[in-house]
Amino acid sequence: MASSTGDQSQAVRNGLRTKVLTLHSMNPRVRRVEYAVRGPIVQRALELEQELRQGVKKPFTEVIRANIGDAQAMGQRPITFLRQVLALCVNPDLLTSPSFPDDAKKRAERILQACGGHSLGAYSVSSGIQLIREDVAQYIERRDGGIPADPNNVFLSTGASDAIVTVLKLLVAGEGHTRTGVLIPIPQYPLYSATLAELGAVQVDYYLDEERAWALDVSELHRALCQARGHCHPRALCVINPGNPTGQVQTRECIEAVIRFAFEERLFLLADEVYQDNVYAAGSQFHSFKKVLMEMGPPYARQQELASFHSTSKGYMGECGFRGGYVEVVNMDAAVQQQMLKLMSVRLCPPVPGQALLDLVVSPPAPTDPSFAQFQAERQAVLAELAAKAKLTEQVFNEAPGISCNPVQGAMYSFPRVQLPPRAVERAQELGLAPDMFFCLRLLEETGICVVPGSGFGQREGTYHFRMTILPPLEKLRLLLEKLSRFHAKFTLEYS
Amino acid sequence: MASSTGDQSQAVRNGLRTKVLTLHSMNPRVRRVEYAVRGPIVQRALELEQELRQGVKKPFTEVIRANIGDAQAMGQRPITFLRQVLALCVNPDLLTSPSFPDDAKKRAERILQACGGHSLGAYSVSSGIQLIREDVAQYIERRDGGIPADPNNVFLSTGASDAIVTVLKLLVAGEGHTRTGVLIPIPQYPLYSATLAELGAVQVDYYLDEERAWALDVSELHRALCQARGHCHPRALCVINPGNPTGQVQTRECIEAVIRFAFEERLFLLADEVYQDNVYAAGSQFHSFKKVLMEMGPPYARQQELASFHSTSKGYMGECGFRGGYVEVVNMDAAVQQQMLKLMSVRLCPPVPGQALLDLVVSPPAPTDPSFAQFQAERQAVLAELAAKAKLTEQVFNEAPGISCNPVQGAMYSFPRVQLPPRAVERAQELGLAPDMFFCLRLLEETGICVVPGSGFGQREGTYHFRMTILPPLEKLRLLLEKLSRFHAKFTLEYS
Repeated sequence: MASSTGDQSQAVRNGLRTKVLTLHSMNPRVRRVEYAVRGPIVQRALELEQELRQGVKKPFTEVIRANIGDAQAMGQRPITFLRQVLALCVNPDLLTSPSFPDDAKKRAERILQACGGHSLGAYSVSSGIQLIREDVAQYIERRDGGIPADPNNVFLSTGASDAIVTVLKLLVAGEGHTRTGVLIPIPQYPLYSATLAELGAVQVDYYLDEERAWALDVSELHRALCQARGHCHPRALCVINPGNPTGQVQTRECIEAVIRFAFEERLFLLADEVYQDNVYAAGSQFHSFKKVLMEMGPPYARQQELASFHSTSKGYMGECGFRGGYVEVVNMDAAVQQQMLKLMSVRLCPPVPGQALLDLVVSPPAPTDPSFAQFQAERQAVLAELAAKAKLTEQVFNEAPGISCNPVQGAMYSFPRVQLPPRAVERAQELGLAPDMFFCLRLLEETGICVVPGSGFGQREGTYHFRMTILPPLEKLRLLLEKLSRFHAKFTLEYS
Repeated sequence: MASSTGDQSQAVRNGLRTKVLTLHSMNPRVRRVEYAVRGPIVQRALELEQELRQGVKKPFTEVIRANIGDAQAMGQRPITFLRQVLALCVNPDLLTSPSFPDDAKKRAERILQACGGHSLGAYSVSSGIQLIREDVAQYIERRDGGIPADPNNVFLSTGASDAIVTVLKLLVAGEGHTRTGVLIPIPQYPLYSATLAELGAVQVDYYLDEERAWALDVSELHRALCQARGHCHPRALCVINPGNPTGQVQTRECIEAVIRFAFEERLFLLADEVYQDNVYAAGSQFHSFKKVLMEMGPPYARQQELASFHSTSKGYMGECGFRGGYVEVVNMDAAVQQQMLKLMSVRLCPPVPGQALLDLVVSPPAPTDPSFAQFQAERQAVLAELAAKAKLTEQVFNEAPGISCNPVQGAMYSFPRVQLPPRAVERAQELGLAPDMFFCLRLLEETGICVVPGSGFGQREGTYHFRMTILPPLEKLRLLLEKLSRFHAKFTLEYS
């Protein structure tokens, strides 16, 4: 308050009263929110792009945004079938055009039939178009080897982020020592830390094991939980599989152990499974939490509460801009589920074009459809290139002295560890920067490569990392990886 | 807690432990949220539609959803130009097709050039595509007679709702007697009450004057503010113009008085102006708060904080499903504006198809463009029909005994007052229902007409209203209005 009064006198001297809304008077929870994926380093990248456009000389000709999992921004082309059907939905006059395949037209007509006024321009019900919820449920059943999924437990959302925030909102209660605690992995995707800060919940960190390719260790969950119980009421456990930013793909055994732990400790499970189509490593396989839970049988299958999230932004399609996604809830209390629907209804509905896109993603062309061959070829090409890029990333980084990189088993990121010389750490501290932020900023200024410091995701004290996407085209990625490795060598030399 | 323990023993008897997340243990703020526009009456409407599909006999053949401002669901056709450009953006292969006008192609190319990877499938920056923010700023300047608008003060959003919630989030702080209070009109659009409940802010009601066509009276603002100051810290004032649900269009004098009041009382102004294109009454005109504020000169123009919201869901286009919208902030503290951007960045970006649509809405075809004539004709046809329907609604309701309806000067709703006989009020109380909810439920069951009870928006104690959209096609609307009036007469007779 002293500082706010200071502002006021300053303002009065300038002939202006203070603002009603200032840094001091605003929502303190919002002030505490951090979101590194679009943080200061990305702001600086934007400025550099502007300087380049204005003709300012730089040691590079373009800024490479390897900070965010945005495939199409990196040049990946949209899947033809998805965009054909969507264009038909947007402009149904095209349904008479001979330049669209029959199955695309049928799919568009089917989606439009399910829309209010047969138009993408009408609101849908708040949980999403019923037909699409049914298609999602069928997708889940196929994915999980026939284990049933109920469309009434599927809620469409504005990207997965929206659904994750909604479920976390339901869970937050209590004050002081009874405040809700939520276990999240470290490193994590910063949506979790940001949302918990905004909601005033307690973030309970459990560390993934870098020595074992970022595996999740149940004994570490125990440690985190016990420590947290002193000062909050832990009620939920978040898992990201395949891992963001780690690229780890969990084994079935690990998932079983996590479910047993959550059950015994009475924790609501949130499974962020948006990278379920992005598994590359030989021997790795995606197991959904839902499937493992159901196959474990009683008491888990009937009682353990679970929310599983998926998105149209990742996978092979990378349709980030459409903001499509869904959550499936399992064993959720019926009255709470009603409350969730009520909460969603305040925002009316998820974007309908994103819902339509999700429908196509969960029910792609069948082998007998005219669009099947092209769809399949495009899909496979994207996934094969991603697998090659995952391998390449691991390889190039591990050849560089002072950089070590776990295998990128899945998802779209590497999260390599970098050695930073003590003098660089000191220099960063003088500048008031996290040492890996200092490294990443210097990297950006000298090479134009934009990656996100590990401190934005969390990491063990004294270790330094960055997250880099594997999304640039293969040959460009190779150059980037080599450039980054050379920069690290130069940086190390400079501060040794 | 007693009840929660009761649940637990019940569960143990059933061989099930309790859920982690129950009505008792969930976020109490979320539990308190209400949203009438999609509340129990709409749930019942959905059930009735299902029963009709299953062949259950009803005294009607279809449910008419006059509960929500969803033009295309009511049969309004999308504006051709908007959908042509959007289809081209979705599927750029169509850019070579001869069936699209040249200006549509140019517009699509211009939008795609501004997208990451030249695709709607890439994320945009969190504040929205820069080119579109610039187009929005130019729209505001034209609308406001040349008063400058800065694209850096424009933030695109997922419908207007998203932006309104974001600005309210910034404003919420304090505990107990220092909790943020927000003045909202009664009747209000329930997004406001729902959001304040969820954020734990204090809702401060000011009543609109039904006797003066729902005008906003500054002496009532004073009364509300003085009363509130005892138990909270009022920091913001929300105004909806044109009014939802009231249909009122504020005079310039009224807006000046509101601005003066907000300035003197140090209140942040939120102006919900999503119906700015929907003004029908002779003598009524839309004045933006921004324009009036700027024309009032110092000290207001340089100091009064204002956020103004707009949307693609209403107006002549009614593109609700695309979830496009924006907020322009005026005189916002620069550091707070940075915090707002940070908060938006956690959700990555508004849906890009909605951003593209917004661009077309704010910069429609120019008179020299090939698409101008058709665009203009379609736009005028929609607005002229809305004006006729506004007039018709007022007329038919005012001819019905026991119903009185203010002129629908703007927006998309009537909010008529209904007399309910004392025996109906008693019967409702026996059933634990608000009397107007009882009336609306009976109306729905007997006629299939779905309207929202006034209690969902707020009204003076002892008065009863409902909100009904003016969106059904003209002849259908006439039948509906007559049917509703007849039902009211019958209902009145039944309970007299």
